[in-house]
Amino acid sequence: MSERSAGSVPPPSERVRVRRKPERGRYDRATIDAILDASIVASVGYVIDGQPFVTPTAIWRTGDRLFWHGSSASRMLRRTKGGVLVCVSAFQLDALVLARSGFNHSVDYRSVMLLGRAYEVEDEEEKLASLRAFVEHLYPGRWDELRPPTRQELKATTVLWMEIAEASAKVRDVGAHDEPGDERWPTWAGSIPVAVTFGAPIPDRFVPVGMPAPIVALAARRSDQGW
Amino acid sequence: MSERSAGSVPPPSERVRVRRKPERGRYDRATIDAILDASIVASVGYVIDGQPFVTPTAIWRTGDRLFWHGSSASRMLRRTKGGVLVCVSAFQLDALVLARSGFNHSVDYRSVMLLGRAYEVEDEEEKLASLRAFVEHLYPGRWDELRPPTRQELKATTVLWMEIAEASAKVRDVGAHDEPGDERWPTWAGSIPVAVTFGAPIPDRFVPVGMPAPIVALAARRSDQGW
Repeated sequence: MSERSAGSVPPPSERVRVRRKPERGRYDRATIDAILDASIVASVGYVIDGQPFVTPTAIWRTGDRLFWHGSSASRMLRRTKGGVLVCVSAFQLDALVLARSGFNHSVDYRSVMLLGRAYEVEDEEEKLASLRAFVEHLYPGRWDELRPPTRQELKATTVLWMEIAEASAKVRDVGAHDEPGDERWPTWAGSIPVAVTFGAPIPDRFVPVGMPAPIVALAARRSDQGW
Repeated sequence: MSERSAGSVPPPSERVRVRRKPERGRYDRATIDAILDASIVASVGYVIDGQPFVTPTAIWRTGDRLFWHGSSASRMLRRTKGGVLVCVSAFQLDALVLARSGFNHSVDYRSVMLLGRAYEVEDEEEKLASLRAFVEHLYPGRWDELRPPTRQELKATTVLWMEIAEASAKVRDVGAHDEPGDERWPTWAGSIPVAVTFGAPIPDRFVPVGMPAPIVALAARRSDQGW
């Protein structure tokens, strides 16, 4: 196998160092940020009375901070603000990888694990700015076209953030691999690419004929991969 | 909004009852199983020294048990076997939902939250059978075409399971929704469908010309959705 070197950036902590398959570990912020920015939804892990919970949640990033949001009444948000320990996991599946042994079946993927403490965005102006950044991250140019938020809507929305500091990425991108000698086994081996794709936009019944749908920034990012 | 009723099946516990947006809650096993079976990778949450961790992991289901596997040396597997509390979260994004206010932007999705304790499949025959079920779940008919596993490979692989008992599904499938009056706001609203799609298989250099690639069972499931 010829997985790329993890490079010269060291892991920020033992807890996020990639121990299994260390050649898949990446600790540079460019790789970590690219995976976070390509994720519409990530998994937020937290603990209540010793029981782990994992909630899928839309995320967005501004500089060194990762954000997520939800109803101010949500259990997940009420339980994770105020400096509570969380883990955010982002994952993109890039290919199913089929080998000639069951053992060497795998997937190509990009993932990030981020540990830290979550805090609420308390300042109203900052909260508004972060929600604007969320909408603009997915749909550039859209915020100014929307009906502006009411005070009640802002109050009903909680925005949380954590620092991107104790983080690692794990990337597998090498396709199929067989044990020496297995190549002659008469079965198919290789990769089946997997991607998130967007279908034709479906306007609601109030959209005037001919009004174009917004561009999704994520779509452009994915098509950069070449298929 | 016209989200479907949660039906007559009650939640199995307070911990997994869908409290925010209860109309999105589903507690029937048919819905829960369908979402799990459509998930190639889910998120496994566990706790080490009070810190939550979330690891993306391939899952498969046989009857009332959910399985995942990995290297016997993996931290996640060593830390989650033996009756440890875990949370498995499966999530599929079905559409981006755009409204005329930022507040009513959303996504359509299907998700499952599963709480319980994870145990190792210790019996060698059962372990082999579960790994066979894993391969056959994704690639029907493939197991018998593979080079059989060695004892060393089996020993290097740990399979975990948990019971599907304390579980809930959460489904949003209603598309765009605006506050009364917002319909006249001059911006686009509606849904942009999102799907996981498979590209053309890429054979490795040992595959004979003309050998067909395996069918991925998940592909058929997704194309059933009609686009």
